[in-house]
Amino acid sequence: MYNIDLLFEAVEARGHVCVGLDTAADYVPPAERQKAASGADAVLAFNKALIDATHDVAACYKVQIAYYEEMGLAGLGAYAATLNYIREKGCLAIADIKRGDIADTAARYAKAHFEGEFEADFVTLSPYMGMDSIEPWLSRAESMGKGAFVLMRTSNSGMRDFEYLELARPPDGRVSVSPYRLYNAVGDKLSGLAAAHSGKYGYGAFGAVVGCTEREEAAEIRKNYPNLFFLIPGYGAQGGAADDAALLLRSGNGGVVNASRSLITAWRTELNKSGGDESKADNLFAARAARKAALTMRDAIQTAVKNVRSQ
Amino acid sequence: MYNIDLLFEAVEARGHVCVGLDTAADYVPPAERQKAASGADAVLAFNKALIDATHDVAACYKVQIAYYEEMGLAGLGAYAATLNYIREKGCLAIADIKRGDIADTAARYAKAHFEGEFEADFVTLSPYMGMDSIEPWLSRAESMGKGAFVLMRTSNSGMRDFEYLELARPPDGRVSVSPYRLYNAVGDKLSGLAAAHSGKYGYGAFGAVVGCTEREEAAEIRKNYPNLFFLIPGYGAQGGAADDAALLLRSGNGGVVNASRSLITAWRTELNKSGGDESKADNLFAARAARKAALTMRDAIQTAVKNVRSQ
Repeated sequence: MYNIDLLFEAVEARGHVCVGLDTAADYVPPAERQKAASGADAVLAFNKALIDATHDVAACYKVQIAYYEEMGLAGLGAYAATLNYIREKGCLAIADIKRGDIADTAARYAKAHFEGEFEADFVTLSPYMGMDSIEPWLSRAESMGKGAFVLMRTSNSGMRDFEYLELARPPDGRVSVSPYRLYNAVGDKLSGLAAAHSGKYGYGAFGAVVGCTEREEAAEIRKNYPNLFFLIPGYGAQGGAADDAALLLRSGNGGVVNASRSLITAWRTELNKSGGDESKADNLFAARAARKAALTMRDAIQTAVKNVRSQ
Repeated sequence: MYNIDLLFEAVEARGHVCVGLDTAADYVPPAERQKAASGADAVLAFNKALIDATHDVAACYKVQIAYYEEMGLAGLGAYAATLNYIREKGCLAIADIKRGDIADTAARYAKAHFEGEFEADFVTLSPYMGMDSIEPWLSRAESMGKGAFVLMRTSNSGMRDFEYLELARPPDGRVSVSPYRLYNAVGDKLSGLAAAHSGKYGYGAFGAVVGCTEREEAAEIRKNYPNLFFLIPGYGAQGGAADDAALLLRSGNGGVVNASRSLITAWRTELNKSGGDESKADNLFAARAARKAALTMRDAIQTAVKNVRSQ
């Protein structure tokens, strides 16, 4: 049993929302920040409240390590505790670490993030250095059912700098799509890997990160890589909408859509709308606002997926 | 004053060796491991002994975070303390973290690794997501003189999977080299960045990672990217030799050559040669062996550079 199968089932049961816990200390209500012994403690308490309030409406959680690293060792303690709390609740945790290094180093990283203090169910990886930077993760993942999402076509505008460049020819001579771009070369390699390590719903243990900020190729990417489960960033604060995400979810499953700021700072948006006082907000208020925003997002995606499928 | 200028001067004064502290607990002599309270403590004491013994023959140190992350929070404490010890000695520390993420996240990472507990003088970055994943580092680096090395053509065989792929055309239409590969697109972008943020010796604040395991393009890469200072991995355990590295150092400066295992486990190699007993080795013995190996490497590179320049 692969974690990717559990994630598929989580989407069936609870929809496509991946709650991104990219939690900076200043996303925490000020009253709670003052109460906490440190920024890291404030972030952890906030995360726990959000997880408590959203675990029945979220497919999974994604924890972006940069926001914790910024707070030093204490921050990384909060990172570890957040992953642990998610997994104790029986939910799935994606460690957003975007690692990519030579094989010996990759094996060290895999040990760090698939076991011990920083254990997660999935990691994100960067493919630049090639498949020997990905495969050591897979060999360690196999025995534990762990998964990964490898960057393919990301949600930032800079993706046009390299990911989007057209290649002179596909590396293996197989012209699966034209123009054939760098992200297609990555997708084809991942697709091969997925075929060799496939879960019971037809998706490979290792999927791909495909942003929903560009519509043009979304339907094509979904069609060309049917065995890749997608982690889809770019929703909300980055400009992606439910209609864009739906193009990557044509089958009705096969991906989770991440939103971070639009969920975890929903409490602030809600207060600003009603002219309320920020200093009165607490974690419970923030958690309820996040839950409401996650539900709205979930329903918007489900409606958009239905529309796409009926077209 | 950029750190890249200080690194240039360090190479002038002490040669090209970058000592890679990719220190796993089992690289530490067994007697010292037993004495230490934890694996992380053992690694830190070992690193300090090595730094004490090599700081006058090394241009800089590179600390690979994966080896510390593997040991959890205690390991990351040893990572922070190692960086701190290097910098207290007046030496330059490269944090080998290969980060690459969207701009907001990159800014968090830059804060984490250019300031506070994990402060380093340089970081390594991965370019896959594009220049908006690099630039937030630069804007933070500028005021502090910090530097970075961005992955361009790495030392692992997997680099052929993506880095080496030929593009249909250069992104800006400028055919600087033929065949024009993905790593050329990265190099050209970095070269532009370097031109806009150039230190007093003509090298940009941000350089590139170029491995010395492939000879063919080394001379060409050096010629095409004269304003990029190179961090050159692949020497020693990965199969690269002084002659290969020298092709990337044609000007006599403009790069540092990293070796990790061949230096930090030199004590084991030395004992094996003499049939000595591993259990008798201590950190001082290991540090002396590392110094000897670093000196041999330094001299081999200097001889090779002279040979290349006289050709």
